[in-house]
Amino acid sequence: MLVNGIPGNTISIRDRGLLYGDGVFRTLRVIRGKALHWPLHYLKLQHDCAKLAIACPDEALLCAELDQVLAQHPDGVVKLIVTRGEGARGYTPSAAVMPTRIWDFSPVPDYPPEWATLGIRARVCSLRLSAQPRLACVKHLNRLENVLAAAELNDAQLHDNQLAEGLLLDAGEHLIEGIRSNLFLVVQGRLVTPDLSRCGVAGIQRGRVMAWALQHGIALEVRDVGLEEAAHADELFIVNSVIGLWPVREMEQRHWSHFPVAEQIRHGLDRQDA
Amino acid sequence: MLVNGIPGNTISIRDRGLLYGDGVFRTLRVIRGKALHWPLHYLKLQHDCAKLAIACPDEALLCAELDQVLAQHPDGVVKLIVTRGEGARGYTPSAAVMPTRIWDFSPVPDYPPEWATLGIRARVCSLRLSAQPRLACVKHLNRLENVLAAAELNDAQLHDNQLAEGLLLDAGEHLIEGIRSNLFLVVQGRLVTPDLSRCGVAGIQRGRVMAWALQHGIALEVRDVGLEEAAHADELFIVNSVIGLWPVREMEQRHWSHFPVAEQIRHGLDRQDA
Repeated sequence: MLVNGIPGNTISIRDRGLLYGDGVFRTLRVIRGKALHWPLHYLKLQHDCAKLAIACPDEALLCAELDQVLAQHPDGVVKLIVTRGEGARGYTPSAAVMPTRIWDFSPVPDYPPEWATLGIRARVCSLRLSAQPRLACVKHLNRLENVLAAAELNDAQLHDNQLAEGLLLDAGEHLIEGIRSNLFLVVQGRLVTPDLSRCGVAGIQRGRVMAWALQHGIALEVRDVGLEEAAHADELFIVNSVIGLWPVREMEQRHWSHFPVAEQIRHGLDRQDA
Repeated sequence: MLVNGIPGNTISIRDRGLLYGDGVFRTLRVIRGKALHWPLHYLKLQHDCAKLAIACPDEALLCAELDQVLAQHPDGVVKLIVTRGEGARGYTPSAAVMPTRIWDFSPVPDYPPEWATLGIRARVCSLRLSAQPRLACVKHLNRLENVLAAAELNDAQLHDNQLAEGLLLDAGEHLIEGIRSNLFLVVQGRLVTPDLSRCGVAGIQRGRVMAWALQHGIALEVRDVGLEEAAHADELFIVNSVIGLWPVREMEQRHWSHFPVAEQIRHGLDRQDA
């Protein structure tokens, strides 16, 4: 759609985004010509670029490009990719490289609307996330683990088309996240979300839920969570910028039917969006 | 240079190679219009595609494309990238996707020729490789760890321009590989190379050295190797398809000046190339 400010849908085969996955991305929900929570997305982009020592593009420049995209596609999902840019052969990132800015658009996936209210079915993937503290939290372009896990979920969906998300553990059997979402537990009135210091992506919707909890006096814990604890939680829910918040109504033989805290948070977040 | 058989140097911004690093690659040394060890490269490509469930392109098709590249660039380094192709939004790989074939060329880097005979200086990187058995050995496009390690090496090279390679350990402090090479030790006449079942890339030059050792009655061990053992090895050397074989003459305060086994193997491999 837009590559370095110019309408187009191709990049160089020498772009380090392709060669090494050397870049980061953002997925924005856009509604009526406005990108939800742009300031949070830009902050996160800055943070992620800094972790890879990529020069983060100027906010004014990105906003101008986003406006161009929104003028044509006011409703849907906008993806922004920032790569380190085109480089010489070899892994070493040259300081002289100019980052590549890529904007793309897609319609909102047609998820059943009742998933937000009645909850979804989730399944634990057999793939285990690897631990890399240097890349943890960052939404970078090295996403083969997500691809492998999504393929696994897809196979399971052939026998069960109600499955909506795959949950991922690390090699230490800690629950980390969903394939495309972050995860929260409600345990005796407290909100618990997995520690992402070794692996996982810290999405902005996760940050919004955490901020909301703090503002509303709900105790919040960020720490290791086992599958057993999740199975016995009072509520379980997943979040991301496109789906918003979905409670989990079934996971590994465990069923939930009431999600009072998840519902309260979902309404809270929705009010901020409106 | 050539994308899906057509001269060009761009790919779609929706190619999964860019979006997720969902692809694999090969780096070929080409000399006088011939790609060295093409059959080994194609076998490895098949193996790597299979690990990601990417449909490996036909050998005849790739050979025809390679011939086109070689006609224009008979000497240098040819890179072949195979991605899963263009897909719909989301991590799930669709079965209907057609893999993308990308060929690029670059001249041979002008490494000092004495590195092959007198050896190189190497340094241990502080980055630790993460363990992902599902992706171990595969030369895929998720190479951010190599990029981070190369940046680290590059910083060190500012103070020491004789540094030629960075060595990588895993989180368990096992020596795994070089940033862009595989590693061998000579220990009391035996050849030892790190086990790559948890991380690392199994290059074809590593396979050639292993095969050569077996053919010439040199005992070979594939197992975990610690830094301490490497520092006390009789010889240490690194290999890849572009550099061939470089002995290590210095690593972490340890010095070597004679590399009889490495030299024997280097000559053996060179004879096969001729």
